Amino acid sequence: MEAKGTEIRLRPIGVIRSTIKERSEAPKQGSEGAPDAWLEVSSFAAEGLDGLRVGDEIIVITWLHQGRRDTLQVHPRSDPRRRLAGVFATRSPDRPNPLGLHRVTVREVSENQLRIGPMEAIDGTPVIDIKPVLADVQDS
Amino acid sequence: MEAKGTEIRLRPIGVIRSTIKERSEAPKQGSEGAPDAWLEVSSFAAEGLDGLRVGDEIIVITWLHQGRRDTLQVHPRSDPRRRLAGVFATRSPDRPNPLGLHRVTVREVSENQLRIGPMEAIDGTPVIDIKPVLADVQDS
Repeated sequence: MEAKGTEIRLRPIGVIRSTIKERSEAPKQGSEGAPDAWLEVSSFAAEGLDGLRVGDEIIVITWLHQGRRDTLQVHPRSDPRRRLAGVFATRSPDRPNPLGLHRVTVREVSENQLRIGPMEAIDGTPVIDIKPVLADVQDS
Repeated sequence: MEAKGTEIRLRPIGVIRSTIKERSEAPKQGSEGAPDAWLEVSSFAAEGLDGLRVGDEIIVITWLHQGRRDTLQVHPRSDPRRRLAGVFATRSPDRPNPLGLHRVTVREVSENQLRIGPMEAIDGTPVIDIKPVLADVQDS
């Protein structure tokens, strides 16, 4: 069954500023040695940051703009020795809607910018949403 | 700074089929008494499910199609006694890009459908992506 051809438009709320400039340099996960980065929130959305504090754990949702959207199966972790798996069973950036989920800590808050880490997304990655990690472990 | 007016179009990969029909009936979080639901994956994306198994913990990303996109501040948990907070410091469905994150367990796999739970999203909610929960606790 098709989802009725619903089309959804996202408007980025900000962008990642990072020392990682190329996908080839990026760790696959933040916990694999990623640096801190700046999340610059666009002026239209800056009011939405109210209440975020240094030390908060947040989930940043990004648009992995270099992901290939026509890919449905991949070798996990780009390892050709691992058998092909559906993209929904992997964290590959290649998937129909290449959204990235990044669990990070807020290191610094400066007007409409957050310094966050560890963050594996590359410089220029659009940011779609920011959510607090819930204390409830079911939702971490 | 604005994110250069980037516009992103999502194509839902599936839809939630639930006994919860109205937003007013839905628990705020899955852990607050939500039922199981079916996630029907569209035929174009079904190949992406390969490798998902009963018992897997997954994160389902939905489009909260009833969210108000012009809201930047809310009273947390709709409680007027709580002071206004920026939407990025809350899990409110009202936000510029109303994506929902749902951590659920796969209960059953049947062709292009997954029975998942607990799931608080209402019937008809578009599904945007499915990702495995990583064993690494940093990224759960």
